[in-house]
Amino acid sequence: MDKAISPFQAAQSLTEFWSPRVIGELDDSYVKVARLKGQLTWHSHENEDELFYVLAGVLHIEMEENTVKVSPGEFFIVPKGVRHNPIADEECLVMLLERKTTLHTGNTVTNKTRSVEDQLRPL
Amino acid sequence: MDKAISPFQAAQSLTEFWSPRVIGELDDSYVKVARLKGQLTWHSHENEDELFYVLAGVLHIEMEENTVKVSPGEFFIVPKGVRHNPIADEECLVMLLERKTTLHTGNTVTNKTRSVEDQLRPL
Repeated sequence: MDKAISPFQAAQSLTEFWSPRVIGELDDSYVKVARLKGQLTWHSHENEDELFYVLAGVLHIEMEENTVKVSPGEFFIVPKGVRHNPIADEECLVMLLERKTTLHTGNTVTNKTRSVEDQLRPL
Repeated sequence: MDKAISPFQAAQSLTEFWSPRVIGELDDSYVKVARLKGQLTWHSHENEDELFYVLAGVLHIEMEENTVKVSPGEFFIVPKGVRHNPIADEECLVMLLERKTTLHTGNTVTNKTRSVEDQLRPL
């Protein structure tokens, strides 16, 4: 790798919602981008924390105890084991940082669920 | 943690250059911010990749093979074992993502070197 990467540009190039794509590898973690609109699904990751960094738009991360609003230029880390549901009332672009073992929708499977292989397709 | 974090605001609040501070914990990694001006020192991290995300200003990451320019909203991952020297001609604010075991200036120690304990002081 010999060039810097713009996650905003990478996220903007996505054509599908809720379909994260890997844009970087950091030891045992992936940097991903995703384009969000609507809501994903309630799920949790038993063994991995998950970082959401908002590039554009507003993300609400609904959890059982509270809901956190994440504005552009802010991040929030969902601790392992915490059930959450990401919601974007309007279109939202995010950068994600999560371990390679993290399943897209955790222990829940819906028609939105993407495999790791799908997320590794080149942009 | 029940609120989103703005790394830009955290970095802006720093009073010292080249003195990273931890603002988040993600499994075995820390999210840090730093305020940079001038250059750090040539060093490498034998076992850890290191992610530099530029929040404001321009960072040049000098390496033995090439130099990468990182503009606001872009990131670059320095692979483990690669000698590098971060340079900011003008003031630059960055967010860093690195494993907790990562030493500030790797296998090099200078008067700029900060301990992990120092980086863990609350902002």
